[in-house]
Amino acid sequence: MHTGRRYTPLEFAIWTRKDILWMLILSTIPTILYVLGCKFLALPWQPIAIVGTAVAFLVGFKNNASYNRIWEARQIYGSIINDSRSFAYTLRDNAGGKNAIAVKRIFYRHFAWLTALRFQLREPRTWENQTTERFAEFRKNHYSVPEANSKMEDELKAYLSEDELEYILSKKNKATQLTAIQSEELGRMKAAGEINDFQWNLLQQSIIKLTDDQGRAERIKNFPYPRNFASITTYLLFIFILLAPFGLLKEMEKLGDGSFLEGYTIWLTIPFATIVTWAFHTLDTVGESSVNPFEGSANDVPITQISRMIEIDMRDMLDESSLPAPISPKNNIVL
Amino acid sequence: MHTGRRYTPLEFAIWTRKDILWMLILSTIPTILYVLGCKFLALPWQPIAIVGTAVAFLVGFKNNASYNRIWEARQIYGSIINDSRSFAYTLRDNAGGKNAIAVKRIFYRHFAWLTALRFQLREPRTWENQTTERFAEFRKNHYSVPEANSKMEDELKAYLSEDELEYILSKKNKATQLTAIQSEELGRMKAAGEINDFQWNLLQQSIIKLTDDQGRAERIKNFPYPRNFASITTYLLFIFILLAPFGLLKEMEKLGDGSFLEGYTIWLTIPFATIVTWAFHTLDTVGESSVNPFEGSANDVPITQISRMIEIDMRDMLDESSLPAPISPKNNIVL
Amino acid sequence: MHTGRRYTPLEFAIWTRKDILWMLILSTIPTILYVLGCKFLALPWQPIAIVGTAVAFLVGFKNNASYNRIWEARQIYGSIINDSRSFAYTLRDNAGGKNAIAVKRIFYRHFAWLTALRFQLREPRTWENQTTERFAEFRKNHYSVPEANSKMEDELKAYLSEDELEYILSKKNKATQLTAIQSEELGRMKAAGEINDFQWNLLQQSIIKLTDDQGRAERIKNFPYPRNFASITTYLLFIFILLAPFGLLKEMEKLGDGSFLEGYTIWLTIPFATIVTWAFHTLDTVGESSVNPFEGSANDVPITQISRMIEIDMRDMLDESSLPAPISPKNNIVL
Amino acid sequence: MHTGRRYTPLEFAIWTRKDILWMLILSTIPTILYVLGCKFLALPWQPIAIVGTAVAFLVGFKNNASYNRIWEARQIYGSIINDSRSFAYTLRDNAGGKNAIAVKRIFYRHFAWLTALRFQLREPRTWENQTTERFAEFRKNHYSVPEANSKMEDELKAYLSEDELEYILSKKNKATQLTAIQSEELGRMKAAGEINDFQWNLLQQSIIKLTDDQGRAERIKNFPYPRNFASITTYLLFIFILLAPFGLLKEMEKLGDGSFLEGYTIWLTIPFATIVTWAFHTLDTVGESSVNPFEGSANDVPITQISRMIEIDMRDMLDESSLPAPISPKNNIVL
Amino acid sequence: MHTGRRYTPLEFAIWTRKDILWMLILSTIPTILYVLGCKFLALPWQPIAIVGTAVAFLVGFKNNASYNRIWEARQIYGSIINDSRSFAYTLRDNAGGKNAIAVKRIFYRHFAWLTALRFQLREPRTWENQTTERFAEFRKNHYSVPEANSKMEDELKAYLSEDELEYILSKKNKATQLTAIQSEELGRMKAAGEINDFQWNLLQQSIIKLTDDQGRAERIKNFPYPRNFASITTYLLFIFILLAPFGLLKEMEKLGDGSFLEGYTIWLTIPFATIVTWAFHTLDTVGESSVNPFEGSANDVPITQISRMIEIDMRDMLDESSLPAPISPKNNIVL
Repeated sequence: MHTGRRYTPLEFAIWTRKDILWMLILSTIPTILYVLGCKFLALPWQPIAIVGTAVAFLVGFKNNASYNRIWEARQIYGSIINDSRSFAYTLRDNAGGKNAIAVKRIFYRHFAWLTALRFQLREPRTWENQTTERFAEFRKNHYSVPEANSKMEDELKAYLSEDELEYILSKKNKATQLTAIQSEELGRMKAAGEINDFQWNLLQQSIIKLTDDQGRAERIKNFPYPRNFASITTYLLFIFILLAPFGLLKEMEKLGDGSFLEGYTIWLTIPFATIVTWAFHTLDTVGESSVNPFEGSANDVPITQISRMIEIDMRDMLDESSLPAPISPKNNIVL
Repeated sequence: MHTGRRYTPLEFAIWTRKDILWMLILSTIPTILYVLGCKFLALPWQPIAIVGTAVAFLVGFKNNASYNRIWEARQIYGSIINDSRSFAYTLRDNAGGKNAIAVKRIFYRHFAWLTALRFQLREPRTWENQTTERFAEFRKNHYSVPEANSKMEDELKAYLSEDELEYILSKKNKATQLTAIQSEELGRMKAAGEINDFQWNLLQQSIIKLTDDQGRAERIKNFPYPRNFASITTYLLFIFILLAPFGLLKEMEKLGDGSFLEGYTIWLTIPFATIVTWAFHTLDTVGESSVNPFEGSANDVPITQISRMIEIDMRDMLDESSLPAPISPKNNIVL
Repeated sequence: MHTGRRYTPLEFAIWTRKDILWMLILSTIPTILYVLGCKFLALPWQPIAIVGTAVAFLVGFKNNASYNRIWEARQIYGSIINDSRSFAYTLRDNAGGKNAIAVKRIFYRHFAWLTALRFQLREPRTWENQTTERFAEFRKNHYSVPEANSKMEDELKAYLSEDELEYILSKKNKATQLTAIQSEELGRMKAAGEINDFQWNLLQQSIIKLTDDQGRAERIKNFPYPRNFASITTYLLFIFILLAPFGLLKEMEKLGDGSFLEGYTIWLTIPFATIVTWAFHTLDTVGESSVNPFEGSANDVPITQISRMIEIDMRDMLDESSLPAPISPKNNIVL
Repeated sequence: MHTGRRYTPLEFAIWTRKDILWMLILSTIPTILYVLGCKFLALPWQPIAIVGTAVAFLVGFKNNASYNRIWEARQIYGSIINDSRSFAYTLRDNAGGKNAIAVKRIFYRHFAWLTALRFQLREPRTWENQTTERFAEFRKNHYSVPEANSKMEDELKAYLSEDELEYILSKKNKATQLTAIQSEELGRMKAAGEINDFQWNLLQQSIIKLTDDQGRAERIKNFPYPRNFASITTYLLFIFILLAPFGLLKEMEKLGDGSFLEGYTIWLTIPFATIVTWAFHTLDTVGESSVNPFEGSANDVPITQISRMIEIDMRDMLDESSLPAPISPKNNIVL
Repeated sequence: MHTGRRYTPLEFAIWTRKDILWMLILSTIPTILYVLGCKFLALPWQPIAIVGTAVAFLVGFKNNASYNRIWEARQIYGSIINDSRSFAYTLRDNAGGKNAIAVKRIFYRHFAWLTALRFQLREPRTWENQTTERFAEFRKNHYSVPEANSKMEDELKAYLSEDELEYILSKKNKATQLTAIQSEELGRMKAAGEINDFQWNLLQQSIIKLTDDQGRAERIKNFPYPRNFASITTYLLFIFILLAPFGLLKEMEKLGDGSFLEGYTIWLTIPFATIVTWAFHTLDTVGESSVNPFEGSANDVPITQISRMIEIDMRDMLDESSLPAPISPKNNIVL
């Protein structure tokens, strides 16, 4: 998540510098051909405009979906915050209080679940953008992904007993099986009379809500913006970018009519067409950079920060003395 | 579900090659007539543009509905994942643990339910597209539908006792009656004192949630995008495609004025009109290819893969040693 | 609900034949006046286009609302399916099993509720379209409304005891009071010890959900698309249809300039204006035909079919031998 | 709520007659100045069209919000219907049946709550429109607001004991405190053993749902469409209405070129500009007339009628013999 | 929240006076250069219009998100009202009645929670606007932020015992830990037999709902409108504002052709371009002023007023005699 007021114009320019180059080339070729005499290249603007309208709709539609995906992702982690807090205090106040060993064990297993979940969500998928040059370069210069700098196994050690760690590492979906252990322990506590049926019921419902949260996050992770929609957007945008400079030739040539620049204004097609096509292309790129909210991009939902924050709040509930520090943005970016 | 970055341009071109041919023909006829002297065919562009705007709205509206349908379908299967997981660990930890026979029987009956449901959802409907040539051809060359390659009866054998299998096969809605058997067994367990009232209550609520999930999936399956909306979209799109080439004639003829191509640029109407009308038509086709998310298309929600994944997670909860393999994409497509 | 691929062009043409005639007349009058010398009638197209854009927005907005209404209506009946199923198996497995008399009585009273509800939902309202000639004619030729062919009293006889039938027929809102009797019987069973507090609680919650479903369906039935929005759409559409032919006159006259048709192309205004205005008008009519999803139109949510389907599933749960047949589409239409 | 097919054209014309006059004046002034020689007033249409597009977006956005507000308001009262019904039969069948005094007392206190709520929702707010001349005049000629014709105190007398009435009238938020008394009585009944813990739990949850419904209705009442959005819509619409006639001058003058009306067609600017600007302005006015769904306008959610309907259904549950009559529309309007 | 009918034109003019100046400058420069002979600066309008359409989409998209954020924020505080009321009467009627000490202590701790929450939500964030000159100036002249005029510690004193106050002030997230104390006290009451399991269950669920409400408010506070979307909106808007005056030059010059103003009308570009670009820019600024609904702007959700209102209603439930006064708007603004 970017936490400043906005990305700087320079960041945008660098980030899209290859696109700018391409737009320049695609604007220059028809201009030169026109100047060399291929006057028939000057396509009428209006039918291009209607393709432009269709592209604007498509890009808008994708940006809308992209926004909804990142916003829903944040809502899900918001639910994780809420469900963690209420699970925590309900457990604490019904299973022995701040100093009970079982309470502490379940709290720390919850931190393990948060850790496993964020590692699982930050694994790469084939449709994600983080391996593309554009994003890799920006990442290198501005921030790093915590889940790429350490191993899940190492971080889990801090939260789980050795046996449980080994058991969990042998499992397919580690976060799911961690919740299953929570359920098992609640069952054990009820059987042992440490909590009664009512308390068990409410606590079991709490971990069911956490399972829902996990599944909703995995859904966004594992189901990309449908590739048929993504493909048609890419190709229509390409057609529009290809056609737009042709549609500007005649108008730009006429600009200088009667002035001392007569015959030279045609060259203004190049910067002007570049600006127009760049605007549309960058709009699409911006949408693309939010569409996978757990891929490790600078626009990601800050799940590492949120997980830490939950850990702080829950340990604070136990009146622990040495709380970990919250994670702060670096270069205005926090993950 | 397509799991790559996008469909290739070649795939798109092959997939829409008949449309391209039609657009070419519809662009060529008015051009030839115009060249032969029917100058009055050059309709003004602006009123056509306003029909184009109405069509853009309609196609956009349908694509939006289509996206919402596939996204909701994925949400429903996301709920099935979540509700299966929490049903599984709650049952395991309250009805005897990992080795209890009843737990295992209910788990496997749940796999039977997943199987029956995906077979029911992949049955054809009259309004679906998978029998059309376009989709059938693509399917033949790229992927196959698991539910078309085997029989529900055969797959259910692995999960149900012989008696139960026979009983279920005699029923109308097999998935519904499988859930009813789960309810029956929970009732029996409560009557036998294997679970108490609280545990029964939570488990019964779990299967009620699974019934809701099933019903929501069936709703999308059985209620198509309303055919009055679908029809008007098709017909207005057809009118626009028919009119658009006429609206370009005059502008395209003027292109060559004063150049050595004077009189020849009119022929550019053909490729140009083809591109514009193809763009609109393909946009509609792309929406149509997601609107029925359980029809066995390459864009389907991958319900076979998800069902397998649930089976793996649940058997992993029982610490079974030989888990089935997850289903991986072939040619970037997974169902 | 129309269950085919689409309405045929012929059905559309017949369905809108009066509109086509009106559009022809409204296009012909200004054309003739123009030919007769009233050249000043040739209004500029651009301001008309901006009214057209406003109309496109309004019609689109209404179609969107219309789609949402029919989709929500289907969701509600989807909930009725789900809540019926889970109510049914929970009752069966906790109140005596498949052969218990009370279970069967409550099942059949539920069928009575489904019947009363669909009759109530298919009663006419002042703002509905089914009495208009356009819809009445289509209905006569293609399908019939089951609730118009029989009486609620007669159908209820199959499900209720004589006393209960008489009691219910004396009530204002029959569906509501049927649910109230279900509640009364659940209360009686709990008092008699046939179900315990936990079972009562879950079953009572089930009928509360059914009450919610009924109320949501009645809300869509009783609250039309707000008439202020409906009115402004009608009037602006009328203004646009009135103005559009005037805006085309000059352009159409110029078409023939310099060709042998000079002076004759003005007559092309008539078919061309008819097509453009028909497109907008039919778009509105299509939206209007889905906006009241329980009025007995060909696009209705098929509540008779769904009610029958629920009855089949529930009787199948009791292992009844002679199940009623599902309702199939006739002429591609099912209600 | 208007219950007819639509407002008549005459009603619209009268309702907006002052606007029509203003539009006429604003169209006439530039026309006269232009005729008098200020040819430079003929602004180009295209930049005005882009302002028009922005205005269309803004007005559309507001109409969308307005529609959502009235639709949500109706949903809330739909919930009140549902929650009242299920509260009613659950209470009746678990607290003594149709003739129990406590049941009747709670039923009538619920009617008091419905009454207090509708009076509170129909109190005026500073941002509402009902004091403006346009709305006041329409109201005077077509309908009256029941809550303006009687006093809350008088109507509550029919439902509450004298002590309770006095207590409630001394409270700030009467509807809230009426629900609190329901909670108090449920607590008393549980303490007295008239209902057990399970019954108390379900009934208490019912009144909690009613509290939610009340709060949601109050939210729409107390939080207007944000005034910054409302203000910018008003001002941009004003700018567009001001500029539009200037943009039409040149085109309208050209209409008569070469005909016997040369020089006279400029006067057509007046009716034509009036129609275009009136269309936009009325669109905004229509949205404004639904944006506050509890202000006593002809488009209000009919909360008086709904409250009466709930009272009828609940008294019918007690088999009362003399039910009050439902409220019917007068002049097609029901509140 | 602004509670009047609208912001006055003067308030808008003053609020955007710097923007107006900038628009004037950006319109004047190309006009002067054009007059000085740089005729080639007269860019064609149509490609600028298509950038304008893209900008209109983007600004519309952001305003939509902005509206949704403030509306959701109000919904959250609506839930806080509802959940506070039902928590309050359920507690009162199940834990000793109006005069019980524990009831009063929990009520006042709830007021402390409301207080801590509103102070936390009004803390500044790096992306918020309240430090910018435009907003600071408006605030200085019209209203003040209650949370800036007093200290959380001081206000909490009125609601908490000294020990609890000290404990809470030592915690990271004070609102969260206040709810945790409520949970602790409910646990204590149940252990002491003051409430039974059923009552504990319902009350614990109430505070879980309040935890959800808090988390949802914090989500909106801590997750800004994504900065990549915000950035591209700003930059494309800037490009449009820069280009628009160039696109108007030629048309404006032609205005005076043949009249006595020939050669002078070019100067009309300045006011006209200023109006058009100001309209777009102000639209964006209006959206920006609602996008952070807890930043202390004049458009904020009035959380101080709402918190006070909850306190009044709850103390009224205890029949307290000296209720605090509600907070009224000053200069039409209430926070």
